[in-house]
Amino acid sequence: MSAAPETHTALKTLRSRLAELADLDAIAMLLEWHQLVMMPAQGGEARGHQLAALARIAHKLATAEGIGECLESLNGADLDELEHDMVRVARRDWERARQIPSELAAEIARASADGQEVWQQARAQDDFAMFAPALERNLALARERGACLAEQDQSAYEALLSDYDYGLTVVELKRVLDGLAEELPALIEDAERHTPVRPLAVPEDAQRAAVAGILRLLGVEDSSWRIDVSTHPFTTWMGRGDSRITTRYIDGDVESLLSSLHEYGHALYERQIDPALERTNLGTGTSMSIHESQSKLWENHVARNAAFAQAMAGELAGGGFEVSGEDLHASLVGVKRSPIRVSADPLTYPLHIVARFELERALIDGELAVADLPEAWRETMRRLLGIEIDSDVQGCLQDVHWSAGAFGYFPSYALGCLIAAQLWKALQDEVGSQDENLAAGRVEPIQRWLGEHVHRYGRRLDTMELVERATGKPLGIEAFLHYVAPLAGR
Amino acid sequence: MSAAPETHTALKTLRSRLAELADLDAIAMLLEWHQLVMMPAQGGEARGHQLAALARIAHKLATAEGIGECLESLNGADLDELEHDMVRVARRDWERARQIPSELAAEIARASADGQEVWQQARAQDDFAMFAPALERNLALARERGACLAEQDQSAYEALLSDYDYGLTVVELKRVLDGLAEELPALIEDAERHTPVRPLAVPEDAQRAAVAGILRLLGVEDSSWRIDVSTHPFTTWMGRGDSRITTRYIDGDVESLLSSLHEYGHALYERQIDPALERTNLGTGTSMSIHESQSKLWENHVARNAAFAQAMAGELAGGGFEVSGEDLHASLVGVKRSPIRVSADPLTYPLHIVARFELERALIDGELAVADLPEAWRETMRRLLGIEIDSDVQGCLQDVHWSAGAFGYFPSYALGCLIAAQLWKALQDEVGSQDENLAAGRVEPIQRWLGEHVHRYGRRLDTMELVERATGKPLGIEAFLHYVAPLAGR
Repeated sequence: MSAAPETHTALKTLRSRLAELADLDAIAMLLEWHQLVMMPAQGGEARGHQLAALARIAHKLATAEGIGECLESLNGADLDELEHDMVRVARRDWERARQIPSELAAEIARASADGQEVWQQARAQDDFAMFAPALERNLALARERGACLAEQDQSAYEALLSDYDYGLTVVELKRVLDGLAEELPALIEDAERHTPVRPLAVPEDAQRAAVAGILRLLGVEDSSWRIDVSTHPFTTWMGRGDSRITTRYIDGDVESLLSSLHEYGHALYERQIDPALERTNLGTGTSMSIHESQSKLWENHVARNAAFAQAMAGELAGGGFEVSGEDLHASLVGVKRSPIRVSADPLTYPLHIVARFELERALIDGELAVADLPEAWRETMRRLLGIEIDSDVQGCLQDVHWSAGAFGYFPSYALGCLIAAQLWKALQDEVGSQDENLAAGRVEPIQRWLGEHVHRYGRRLDTMELVERATGKPLGIEAFLHYVAPLAGR
Repeated sequence: MSAAPETHTALKTLRSRLAELADLDAIAMLLEWHQLVMMPAQGGEARGHQLAALARIAHKLATAEGIGECLESLNGADLDELEHDMVRVARRDWERARQIPSELAAEIARASADGQEVWQQARAQDDFAMFAPALERNLALARERGACLAEQDQSAYEALLSDYDYGLTVVELKRVLDGLAEELPALIEDAERHTPVRPLAVPEDAQRAAVAGILRLLGVEDSSWRIDVSTHPFTTWMGRGDSRITTRYIDGDVESLLSSLHEYGHALYERQIDPALERTNLGTGTSMSIHESQSKLWENHVARNAAFAQAMAGELAGGGFEVSGEDLHASLVGVKRSPIRVSADPLTYPLHIVARFELERALIDGELAVADLPEAWRETMRRLLGIEIDSDVQGCLQDVHWSAGAFGYFPSYALGCLIAAQLWKALQDEVGSQDENLAAGRVEPIQRWLGEHVHRYGRRLDTMELVERATGKPLGIEAFLHYVAPLAGR
């Protein structure tokens, strides 16, 4: 006997519920984009209420008995591969969501909106004490959330990690981060001599023109993209035809060239997901580390590529700033220990993450008090990178994440660097060196390979399986060490 | 026996449900603002899904049994005046919302988003045929909605009117519109001679500077306002600390001075509602005609005031454009029959509304086919205003309303003109002529009087009662005729 009619009905109902949840996710992303890019400052309180209402409603819908009933009647049903994945991930999401009380979910959303608002002010005034109560509130809520999600003897922190990277364990994470902490310091020391920083003072206007020109080379056009400015660059997507990246322009710097390609990598991932997954639970990036691997691939392996520097130099020239490809490249790869994560070179960058991983774990575990964070930050940066932090703006106030309640997010940046390097090696092994294409600003082969091996799957594959399928190897640090070795003259 | 504990619980539950609905309304406004001001064109389809999901959810929450239960247990309860109004209006809204099936509400939202998207393209290409299917779909849905809402022998059109102006009847509406259609043509003929159009070619830059400067005089500052550009100027509010107005700048014109004050009037209304009503069902403007009276008051009685022209001329001078207050004023009040509603002078304006009132009633009633609309538009404008329409962009493609599914909205513009004139007279009768203040750019007495007599009530008073309380008279056309008489030299 076939259960086909019941299966058909249950699938249809499930699909329409998942589509509604996807729509609400997109709305929440718009509200958040809007808060950071467009909103008048006094709109924060109302926006907090609105995000809370949305989170409460989404949580109610995500945990509805109706979904459980669909899942139950789909138990053992005859499904095709796509349906099977949809149901598998729906079951996972439903069970996780059922562990969080509605009111907690709403309060977290409210605290996140409030926290980001206060953080912007505190950062502007370099006033950690102003920010501390919001951080305290976010931490308490994150601990509560972690406790709800934790399985058996899992720590709250590990439970929070799985928000961003499902299935990632603290043990695995420590394995790779410890590996980096062991290998990188010696390389950094050599690289600071072999590949010193060579600043390039590009006027803001030329940066703007070049960023627009480079993104155009990459296929960014007005009818389905927006490029805006925000304090902290980020990416938002609201459907295949609506990608937004933000950047920031610091006069006399080149950071915007890197950060705009970084954000482009995030956006391209979402755009190249199989259209069949749109408005299902599988239609977004699978994890934060895979997402960051996409941004880091474009930042480290394209924007910092010596050949692509020639194409970028051409765009800068179009913006009225003459520079050789060699000099531009040199300005983008110099190694120097510095306090700011987002402007760190690719070699010191992972140690910024090791620091945050240590600190946020201690904050969540209650081993570090909020009041002691500024000093602990200074101490950690001294120990790992050997540098002194002069102010909290250069220290623990620099990133938006904790203000938004995102704990367990930072590690994905380091994993992203490792995965990017491993993917870039696999890509060039398969389709050949991209130097010639990149020198001419041609990126279609890269877009195509990533679409085929990474993007199209959406959430159908989790991080580790995806890495192994795309690269033929489990996640490791070798490809990354191979990528950074030349910086140290090795 | 007192029912106090039950009353308290029911009120608390009701309040939290109404707050959630207010939050969802604000979110929908943001999405709509965003679609018209910020969204890449290809984002339209996804945005349609998102608005539909939001409308479906809001409709489900607005019609929830839970609200009905609260209302039932509040029947005959001992309530203070504010609570009484809240419950009274909640009952009205709940009953109306229960008459609309969820799927219809969602489909209307989707059609509205799609329609606006198509309209923007059709308008850009002057291609009515491209727009016709979307209009057909909006009409069919509006008819269906009207049929759901209609009481007894009420027409679908009259039922739709009450979306915008609760309690307004076609009979009342015809009374005032017929009065205008009777009085205005003779005045227009005289006015075209006595107050001819005197164009003033203000460069776009000077307009931008002046609009910013004038709005600053009126209290507009960055921390709680946004001023953006869109095809059709409009206003959005998302809480007391977040008002947005849009305008458009036509090089060599002065329309932006009028339209920005028009939109300011809408925004000020929402900002001055009693804070105690925030996030309740009473915390927004009471009706579209009162809303339009606020925009028209600032457009007709402030921006077109000879004294205020001196202050505006000062701001234009700041933007590098020298003009006397007299010449600026003359450029803002000239009378000339023309095809475009939003740029019409105050005297011909109401006849544009009479035309739309006739046409949309015929469309909804099925007496006019969509395919015949362009020709019917031409004929109506010929009959009422004696002018020839050369293209649909100058005709039935000029306004956004029907593309968004808003039928029954236009009449509120004409009522707004009448109410504005009646309020302005009452204001000056009470606090004296504002000429001296306006010449100096001082508008606090106007803001205060409007706050006290109109704004603070939110939805506590319906249109006709509000007009009568604020002005001491029922709605009529006398004050408006008195306002326009000088244009005709009378």
